[in-house]
Amino acid sequence: MIPTITAFERSPDRGQGLARDMRVRWALEEVGLLYDVRLLPFSQMKEPAHRALHPFGQIPTYEEGDLILFETGSIVLHIAENHAGLLPADRNARARAITWMFAALNTVEPPIVEREMPGYLERNKPWYEERLPILTDRVRHRLDDLAGRLGDADWLDGAFSAGDLLMVTVLRRLDGSGLLEEYPNLSAYVARGEARPAYERAFADQLAVFTTASAGR
Amino acid sequence: MIPTITAFERSPDRGQGLARDMRVRWALEEVGLLYDVRLLPFSQMKEPAHRALHPFGQIPTYEEGDLILFETGSIVLHIAENHAGLLPADRNARARAITWMFAALNTVEPPIVEREMPGYLERNKPWYEERLPILTDRVRHRLDDLAGRLGDADWLDGAFSAGDLLMVTVLRRLDGSGLLEEYPNLSAYVARGEARPAYERAFADQLAVFTTASAGR
Repeated sequence: MIPTITAFERSPDRGQGLARDMRVRWALEEVGLLYDVRLLPFSQMKEPAHRALHPFGQIPTYEEGDLILFETGSIVLHIAENHAGLLPADRNARARAITWMFAALNTVEPPIVEREMPGYLERNKPWYEERLPILTDRVRHRLDDLAGRLGDADWLDGAFSAGDLLMVTVLRRLDGSGLLEEYPNLSAYVARGEARPAYERAFADQLAVFTTASAGR
Repeated sequence: MIPTITAFERSPDRGQGLARDMRVRWALEEVGLLYDVRLLPFSQMKEPAHRALHPFGQIPTYEEGDLILFETGSIVLHIAENHAGLLPADRNARARAITWMFAALNTVEPPIVEREMPGYLERNKPWYEERLPILTDRVRHRLDDLAGRLGDADWLDGAFSAGDLLMVTVLRRLDGSGLLEEYPNLSAYVARGEARPAYERAFADQLAVFTTASAGR
């Protein structure tokens, strides 16, 4: 059964792979699964038809027969549980890999998003410039801890796992901020993720949506 | 094997059950597992001994023999996977319950935390009052969607699950903001969670830490 995911019809990042469908595409490529993509115009994101799949009106969603999932963490975990390649077989190592999935999404990503949001919502406010260092320090605080734990290892806990997949995509959200460059081991970690053949295939596929769509305009 | 969790020696919320060990206590009570608690002074949170368990220097951690976990989402999922009571047996229903776990932690909690943080870090800044409505609207946006999906159901997807457990604890962080009261079905949902015997036992136990500790001072 070939699953179907949703993605933005017009990628707001112009194909840099920062939209969240990238996480699911990468996971599907790691385990070698074919999938279909349904592109969604912004105008339909908050409509009832899409909200029936995703209560918060976002992408991606994941449909596999009768099963409908949202939340990239959950979709990636579902793929990882049902196909080899993203979670270790050992019970304890598996639980630790899942811990890194949650750490990526609940501990590392929120301050990164929080640092990004004022750029969209508050850029013209008088406090924007003064607040940015406060938000940047909160991100650094997490990166300090993460860099300390990673040390000179290739991946966060033994072999590459779904935890690394999510963490790399979360850290990629710092592109252009200069922050990741302060941590050579984290920069190398992200580069290691981006160099995986499955990542490269997923990246090319999400970019093709954008280049193909813009070709027609 | 009785697991050991860590919790704050002095609860910053004075026993209102908002510290994150509450989530793990509740999960352990739902499945009927005994557990030990090791109380951690603030002075030890960022020390190497605790960081060996938790790279970000937080509570709770979870130790079960050789296995060490952090991140409440991961700990609750680990408990749910190994004991009946927190995840449905049906494969698809199980995947959907896990989706709600991630939704609680990655979609609903971040804007709630983001609304809280300036109260600690920026209360004396001139922009504090003007920003609060922006942050409050971001929380409302999520609550609108969540209330719409819950409707008049008891729980988010069929029977009570680990997804509800995390969502209820996330929504409880709004205590005192008045926001939850704008959504009668979400208020009733949280009250339904708080009325569960397992919740009540967990709440009493985390409160006892605080009342016992302060009795000696």
